[in-house]
Amino acid sequence: MKKEIKVFAPASVTNVSCGFDILGFAIDFPGDELKLKIKDKPGVSISKITGDNGRLPIDPLKNTAGVSLISMVEHIGFNKGIDIEIHKKIALGSGLGSSATSAVASVFALNEILERPLSRKELLPFALEGEKLTCGGTPHADNVSACLMGGFIIVRSIDPLDVIPINVSANLYCTILHPHLEINTADTRKILRNNILLADATKQWGNVAGLVAGLMSGDYDLIGRSLHDVIIEPIRGMLIPGFNEIKNAAINSGALGCSISGSGPSVFAFSKTKPAAKNVGDTMKKVLSQMDIDADIYISKINKQGPKVIK
Amino acid sequence: MKKEIKVFAPASVTNVSCGFDILGFAIDFPGDELKLKIKDKPGVSISKITGDNGRLPIDPLKNTAGVSLISMVEHIGFNKGIDIEIHKKIALGSGLGSSATSAVASVFALNEILERPLSRKELLPFALEGEKLTCGGTPHADNVSACLMGGFIIVRSIDPLDVIPINVSANLYCTILHPHLEINTADTRKILRNNILLADATKQWGNVAGLVAGLMSGDYDLIGRSLHDVIIEPIRGMLIPGFNEIKNAAINSGALGCSISGSGPSVFAFSKTKPAAKNVGDTMKKVLSQMDIDADIYISKINKQGPKVIK
Repeated sequence: MKKEIKVFAPASVTNVSCGFDILGFAIDFPGDELKLKIKDKPGVSISKITGDNGRLPIDPLKNTAGVSLISMVEHIGFNKGIDIEIHKKIALGSGLGSSATSAVASVFALNEILERPLSRKELLPFALEGEKLTCGGTPHADNVSACLMGGFIIVRSIDPLDVIPINVSANLYCTILHPHLEINTADTRKILRNNILLADATKQWGNVAGLVAGLMSGDYDLIGRSLHDVIIEPIRGMLIPGFNEIKNAAINSGALGCSISGSGPSVFAFSKTKPAAKNVGDTMKKVLSQMDIDADIYISKINKQGPKVIK
Repeated sequence: MKKEIKVFAPASVTNVSCGFDILGFAIDFPGDELKLKIKDKPGVSISKITGDNGRLPIDPLKNTAGVSLISMVEHIGFNKGIDIEIHKKIALGSGLGSSATSAVASVFALNEILERPLSRKELLPFALEGEKLTCGGTPHADNVSACLMGGFIIVRSIDPLDVIPINVSANLYCTILHPHLEINTADTRKILRNNILLADATKQWGNVAGLVAGLMSGDYDLIGRSLHDVIIEPIRGMLIPGFNEIKNAAINSGALGCSISGSGPSVFAFSKTKPAAKNVGDTMKKVLSQMDIDADIYISKINKQGPKVIK
């Protein structure tokens, strides 16, 4: 058995427009890096975290990666010790699944160094244990599933957990706009209404059906027509400065569709080519710069691989 | 141009479990037959209706087939006369799209006798004009679309109309149980709640996503797991005597899933083989016979052809 491993786990986009809580996909970049070392003395420790401006707890019981690892260690009965270093490249509270990515990286790293006793699907529950920390007790499986499985996924059900990879025929390029603002996931949930109109819900599941069919059949027009969220986006969009202008700019510059990534403030858009995706990014960023808000742009295909060993 | 044509149009199942108002499919049997004759004197007339026990209006302005034909005649500027005979084989108010089928049969027949000036999608709006009569002004496109296009369809949006055929890989057999009871579509809509829980809606669109993915990828287990309706079926099921027992009987005898067809009282179930579908039908019918309710059973694959010329 190796004594040390370094892994990369990708960021993910969830709440994909009409697919609130049930659709997600991984992107190539950004992603977190995690180094895992086997020690003789039992126990899980975190020796270092970079890229978080000192904000993430080093106490493994309070850290998503630590909690995930501990639940996996207990399950498999691993009797040695583990130390991890977490190198955050995904901004906290960006809407790109930052906490889920670290949780996935930790259990993926342990599984790899142990030469894969578990399948990726079997790792899901442990990564979800960590994710519970950030969601205030309610586990959301979309970011963790997309990051761990790679590609586009459906979370059909959370209890019992049922995650389905979608075989995407469309060759999509994703533009991510990450404004330098932070939104707390728990707050963005509180502002949602518990009750919605049946008529709106029916529109939403019509679009969900269209989006899944479009992705699987490679029908770009259908994907574009289906990327409409009449329930969540109108509310959460209000928390993102200039959201409507950003979205209009993306669509007018050729994007197939555009919506909020996770609970924001990041915004994603789909395009058919890489140059188109870059152009969409430039246009979206311009809207924010006119409001004196800085932003990062990431251009990526859908990441089909999920986490990977880098050393 | 021929002077006379006879066509068959299939019954259809809509509100497919989780897919309220957006999913539908055609079945091979039963279906309505319609004879259309070209006359010299302009105008649309209905000379005969059979199989309706005298309940359908012979006045073309009050009959779904008549209204559909008139709107098509006006659109294409047809300057001769048309007379139709309608032979109903689908029971009225059965939940199998009886009115939609007659509407489709009429416009399909005229289009065929005129050697197809319009595509099937272009015929949709005319058939929908007729369907408006039965829905109290609110057009529902699911039965009409499934009957006219054949196969499994998504009605992504009603305004603008966007109907998408699903390329179904799964080889499904459908069992229809038609209890000899009648339910009025308008009434079954009134009992639905206008407001629903976001949490329930999220479950529903998770299942819709799973069902579309399962149908397209041919994943029978996924189809079965996704055939759950937490919003409409619990309410409408109460209007069908013994519905819960019928559904349990179907599932326990091997059906992948079971739910209400349209707004009932017919019930559909999916199976993987024809013998399984027959067995499911026998079991469902037995539940009703214990309540002294007669029922018809139809076993059919998904009808991919839609309406056809029979003479």
